[in-house]
Amino acid sequence: MPGFPHGRPLHFNLFNNGSGHHEASWRLPGSYPLANLDIEYHERLAQLAESVMFDSVFLADHVALEGAARRPAGRIDPLTVLTAVARATTRIGLIATASTSYNDPFNLARRFAALDLLSGGRAGWNIVTTPGDASARNFGLDSQASHFERYQRADEFVSVAEKLWDSWEDDAIVADREAGVWADESKIHTIDHRGRFFSVRGPLNTPRSPQGHPVLVQAGSSEDGRDFAARHAEAVFTAQHTLADGQAFYADLKRRVKLAGRDPDGVKILPGIVPVIGSTEAEALELNAELDRLVLAESGRDRLARQLGLTPAQLPLDKPLPDDLPSEEEIEGDKSRFTLIVELARREKLTVRELVGRLGSGRGHRTFAGTPEQVVEVIEQWAREGAADGFNIMPATLPSGFELFVEHVVPILRTRGLIRSEYQGTTLREHYGLPRPPSRYAPRAASADAAPAGVAARGSE
Amino acid sequence: MPGFPHGRPLHFNLFNNGSGHHEASWRLPGSYPLANLDIEYHERLAQLAESVMFDSVFLADHVALEGAARRPAGRIDPLTVLTAVARATTRIGLIATASTSYNDPFNLARRFAALDLLSGGRAGWNIVTTPGDASARNFGLDSQASHFERYQRADEFVSVAEKLWDSWEDDAIVADREAGVWADESKIHTIDHRGRFFSVRGPLNTPRSPQGHPVLVQAGSSEDGRDFAARHAEAVFTAQHTLADGQAFYADLKRRVKLAGRDPDGVKILPGIVPVIGSTEAEALELNAELDRLVLAESGRDRLARQLGLTPAQLPLDKPLPDDLPSEEEIEGDKSRFTLIVELARREKLTVRELVGRLGSGRGHRTFAGTPEQVVEVIEQWAREGAADGFNIMPATLPSGFELFVEHVVPILRTRGLIRSEYQGTTLREHYGLPRPPSRYAPRAASADAAPAGVAARGSE
Repeated sequence: MPGFPHGRPLHFNLFNNGSGHHEASWRLPGSYPLANLDIEYHERLAQLAESVMFDSVFLADHVALEGAARRPAGRIDPLTVLTAVARATTRIGLIATASTSYNDPFNLARRFAALDLLSGGRAGWNIVTTPGDASARNFGLDSQASHFERYQRADEFVSVAEKLWDSWEDDAIVADREAGVWADESKIHTIDHRGRFFSVRGPLNTPRSPQGHPVLVQAGSSEDGRDFAARHAEAVFTAQHTLADGQAFYADLKRRVKLAGRDPDGVKILPGIVPVIGSTEAEALELNAELDRLVLAESGRDRLARQLGLTPAQLPLDKPLPDDLPSEEEIEGDKSRFTLIVELARREKLTVRELVGRLGSGRGHRTFAGTPEQVVEVIEQWAREGAADGFNIMPATLPSGFELFVEHVVPILRTRGLIRSEYQGTTLREHYGLPRPPSRYAPRAASADAAPAGVAARGSE
Repeated sequence: MPGFPHGRPLHFNLFNNGSGHHEASWRLPGSYPLANLDIEYHERLAQLAESVMFDSVFLADHVALEGAARRPAGRIDPLTVLTAVARATTRIGLIATASTSYNDPFNLARRFAALDLLSGGRAGWNIVTTPGDASARNFGLDSQASHFERYQRADEFVSVAEKLWDSWEDDAIVADREAGVWADESKIHTIDHRGRFFSVRGPLNTPRSPQGHPVLVQAGSSEDGRDFAARHAEAVFTAQHTLADGQAFYADLKRRVKLAGRDPDGVKILPGIVPVIGSTEAEALELNAELDRLVLAESGRDRLARQLGLTPAQLPLDKPLPDDLPSEEEIEGDKSRFTLIVELARREKLTVRELVGRLGSGRGHRTFAGTPEQVVEVIEQWAREGAADGFNIMPATLPSGFELFVEHVVPILRTRGLIRSEYQGTTLREHYGLPRPPSRYAPRAASADAAPAGVAARGSE
């Protein structure tokens, strides 16, 4: 039974999206509609997650502005936010989304190395290919590249980044004042990458960071996405609605990891869960119903239309989804989200209005409304029955929903040994139980002996 | 007499390059060779500059690694460093170099908006076109674009960035929970830019920041660079060796600004000065001589050869520069640095070895070794005689040289009214006496009334 009960606690990530993961959370009295733009808010929420020993906090990203009329939509660049958060915390991991379609490998590898350096080894990168034409149009294109093409680029992008992160051996810096030798240049390597998408000579201009490189995270569950995860990911965020779906995904991905020649335990699978917590089940269900009522159907339909490759006019609110939808193969945006939505609507025979309400609640992730005990039961069951190594916690409302989680759910998790009671390590790799990768350019013996960090920038220790 | 004595103090920027601006500073006993990689060092140095009311701190950048064998060469991405520094300070301005040749306007405009938001309006951008083939090879090119071409791209890049920063009017965010309206989309504008280098639809995904946009800084003094500065810059860093050169540059640039239809007082000119401070003049000269002795001639020659477009073998150490140098027109790297170096060598009839020693000291900026009183005399003279609105302070050794400046030079500057004794404003624009630009998309009346910031992210206030 993977991940449990081997005496290891589960992994917990807080997905901080500002005002909460329910589409309508910002409309509740007492909400904070500007949360995502407030750096102190991000710092405080990470400190709260750190106080209960979460492995990590995570910030998503999108490089276009869409739907700002109806919901909080502006955001601060996630790596910038997490730099501030790094300085306001000491242990918790810091995971940021960044796009392989709309960045250069040199600049992005360098930014993650910087975050890893100044956080003392707590950086993680959620690798996305960024669906949608709106993003493409901010970067010189008229429309997005195909799904397949974006993943081809992502594959090469990550390879280049990994080479750059390896380009300084751990002990390259000498700093010998007497001899006037700052670095041993035989331990700093050009990478001389020439590929289909990128030509990058290297080396990186930043020394090797405490973790060697950031923890690589992936969240797409399409065929391309799963194969990509099997090759590169060290942690996977995924949206799974039923235990059976979760088990199937878990088994399939671990199988693919093994086929790719990697250790299945070296890839942690964290399904998203959207807890809606009440002191009684009735109270939780009432809060959930109130949130669903606050969803603006027209706004949700606009988003749904984008996700399904349709126009809003093709989706009358009080009818089921049309029969003649495109197939997943024809979708060039987020394929796995498309399939999840269509299957949910068909399985539960939902009208568009009902579907929009359901999707407002966590945007396709598993919502669970109940008492703290009931939330823990779900967590324990999914872990025990082979669907999860941990969870991506996505509170329907923020900060209130996470405050309730910390106050009422965490103590029960702790009693049952499902969450750590103190940090054992200082890096995100150590929290997730992942090895530190050696530099591919280091002699084998040297890399085994290498100190975990060759430089002094571990400011937050 | 510009900038003085109009009752306004001069502007002071600390250029923090890690271990000090003298090439050999890191070789002195007690130096800190890893300074540039230590985030707490950057925070402390900025706090020290803030304690004496400097306008700003500045971090340079280079997107390739060169010369790591002989001097500190690795660096953390400057915008990342300044994000941490922003959270450790409350008033001082934060200026980062970033390249227009090796970034996308959308990503970079967004990163500066982020820094401006989370610092409460303290961001500045030193716009560089990044000379050198080594950088080009990290971004898919075999060699750099021509000097002219790089400036053409820079021109369009800055225009796109300015449009993106304007794309949200100041009062676009409504956050009306009851009505379910988060933003007034009539106040958020696509920019629909289609130019020679970039196509960017917009809007930015980050709201308008406290300063409207970061203070735009420029540091190239070639013809292309001066014209670019005249069109875009709000502050100019410049290397000038003699008072006469400084006066000529100052007059020429202010004239070009006026010709470009802008207010000459809206562009602050800050020559670099490399103070080497001793309690007696003899002590200062001895420290300076010790630093020059510690320069490794071969290392300096390697750098000189790159700057002159030659090979090291063409530069015998004990001979003068060869007669058949290329002309400034033929140089595609840093044209103004090339000319400054050649003129210095010819004027003072220096051998390559002597030239390397002189350039080690501040890399072409004006070095001044003397007592605190003598340093103040130079500062006062340059300001009084029309060569400066302020100074870019580049201590030969760091942190020691800046600690001496703070302890011994600043009190004299204060007595003479040459440096402010407290901050009057909270933003970098206010420190430099620069207006806040209105959004080009806002109705004229509305922009005049707009609050200085429409969002709540001013965490450090």
